[in-house]
Amino acid sequence: MDKQILLGHGSGGKLSHDLIIELFFKYFNNPTLNSQTDSALLKIESENIAFTTDSYVVDPVFFPGGDIGKLAVAGTVNDIAVSGAKPLFLSASFIIEEGLPLSDLTIIVKSMAEEAKKAGVIIVTGDTKVVNKGKCDKIFINTSGIGILNKKHKNISSGKNIKPGDKIIINGTIGDHGIAILSARNELNIKSNIVSDCACLNNLIEKALGVSSEIKFMRDATRGGVATILSELSENKNFGIQIEESSVKVKEEVRGMCEILGFDPLYVANEGKVLIVVGSKDAERVLKVLKQDELGKDSTIIGEIVDEHPGKSWITTGIGGKRIIDMLTGEQLPRIC
Amino acid sequence: MDKQILLGHGSGGKLSHDLIIELFFKYFNNPTLNSQTDSALLKIESENIAFTTDSYVVDPVFFPGGDIGKLAVAGTVNDIAVSGAKPLFLSASFIIEEGLPLSDLTIIVKSMAEEAKKAGVIIVTGDTKVVNKGKCDKIFINTSGIGILNKKHKNISSGKNIKPGDKIIINGTIGDHGIAILSARNELNIKSNIVSDCACLNNLIEKALGVSSEIKFMRDATRGGVATILSELSENKNFGIQIEESSVKVKEEVRGMCEILGFDPLYVANEGKVLIVVGSKDAERVLKVLKQDELGKDSTIIGEIVDEHPGKSWITTGIGGKRIIDMLTGEQLPRIC
Repeated sequence: MDKQILLGHGSGGKLSHDLIIELFFKYFNNPTLNSQTDSALLKIESENIAFTTDSYVVDPVFFPGGDIGKLAVAGTVNDIAVSGAKPLFLSASFIIEEGLPLSDLTIIVKSMAEEAKKAGVIIVTGDTKVVNKGKCDKIFINTSGIGILNKKHKNISSGKNIKPGDKIIINGTIGDHGIAILSARNELNIKSNIVSDCACLNNLIEKALGVSSEIKFMRDATRGGVATILSELSENKNFGIQIEESSVKVKEEVRGMCEILGFDPLYVANEGKVLIVVGSKDAERVLKVLKQDELGKDSTIIGEIVDEHPGKSWITTGIGGKRIIDMLTGEQLPRIC
Repeated sequence: MDKQILLGHGSGGKLSHDLIIELFFKYFNNPTLNSQTDSALLKIESENIAFTTDSYVVDPVFFPGGDIGKLAVAGTVNDIAVSGAKPLFLSASFIIEEGLPLSDLTIIVKSMAEEAKKAGVIIVTGDTKVVNKGKCDKIFINTSGIGILNKKHKNISSGKNIKPGDKIIINGTIGDHGIAILSARNELNIKSNIVSDCACLNNLIEKALGVSSEIKFMRDATRGGVATILSELSENKNFGIQIEESSVKVKEEVRGMCEILGFDPLYVANEGKVLIVVGSKDAERVLKVLKQDELGKDSTIIGEIVDEHPGKSWITTGIGGKRIIDMLTGEQLPRIC
């Protein structure tokens, strides 16, 4: 019989100790973590750092294109990278439902280790709690992360240098993650070939930052999708945003699913898409370098910052109409990340 | 009717946005958090930092002496402080069960803000996820934290300078937290006046570090209790640990409950107790400064590091017997933190 996670694995005693040594240290293996101190002691060669946190509760835990472990690393790495910072260190904290097969946890932990390796980050500290059966849903993971920030990128996360004329780029098709998760839920009985775009974007972003000092803003389009970022970005600003619907790429199958379900792909979550605002003179150069990377090969300029309708984001539809892009109200797809 | 948390509060859309502004920003209020960037941008005036994480799943959420919010701040502050570092910044990530009364969440958030203020730390970044009813238990909170480490304290967390003759101090009675939680669980129908010792210890620890450069090791005695720390501390070492049972203070009521339930107070969790290993010549000086503080007024020297029985911790019992202190196997009290 497959071994299962027991309440004792979260006790802080012998079972916890064994799980840490045999699973977490084995896959996350690095001297800082292995030193088993209460806090990880780190050397940071910059006085400016970026610090972020996210809890992941995705359902199902395993989905086409990834699992909760991969997502937990990629999501937090991306939150740091879009600030213009270089992600270096992650924490990993697990809340596990009693009875989770140890084999499932092992796949998740391996997946975190692989994704961390790809992104060039190390998992330096962690925690494990186990709750009684029925008191959580398989596994929830929190990752927090630290990156170092080059002073010249300090205004990227606030977007304070954005001005009319700047171009808006996105690195590929939208809505893949949300629809992949939805298709993977058994209750819907939907079959599709849609794969989540879940990926660490820090290497791609580094390339873009390497060819332009005119990158004014970046954000990964997760919960609430591209629409929510645009709406937040223009809110209370003295500029407007104009998006060209025909430039926003959506996979045929994603579009079809959205039509059936009554979703607007602009609001569907992504986990490997970054929206970049760049000065117009550098837009083509950034686009070119993004397109050379596997994670950016379908990049397009989807719109621009405008003087008109300050505080609002508008989209021009295929048939020439215009509509406002508002914030998502209510919940479209719970637990997609 | 009392307002409740809805799935939409975790959507990343309008409801999330409103909750963030009206609740989290209101109580955690600071410019870094309020800037609403994907990552908090921080200035750190030391190249040596301590980084830690913990997820809190305590049941019940409200208990005598605190709540999950106070615990989530104190626990992470203490993990940084026992490394000899000065805690500065926290993240706060919430996993909330749909239907949680907004009034409960408000109490918890206020409690986090108050505790953070006492400890002198600020909550600079966060996340909120909402899961369907029945998929978690009211609320789980992750806090991660960053502190700066003075180079002269860099060996405290590993305890590498410990040697025979060093004294072991604890700042008061043990087992209060675990027994308070247990008493607060309705199913046991137990009435007691035991209050959790849940508290931020960073100010107390700073006082101790201020009077001695001979503090060799510190750890907060949470899950697994004092016994687990002692057992981990002596494991694979070329020294032994000798504890005098009569010096370990246990409140009468806690002792009584432990007897009824068959628990050993040495293994019961604390949330405001730190075990300090200090060079013998400074032991009395450290004890004195601890005793002057409300959180350390019952401090005692409970034992010492010895040459004998290397790798093992022993306790001398009241009637002159000796027994080994082993790691906790299995789970004594699930979800005490």
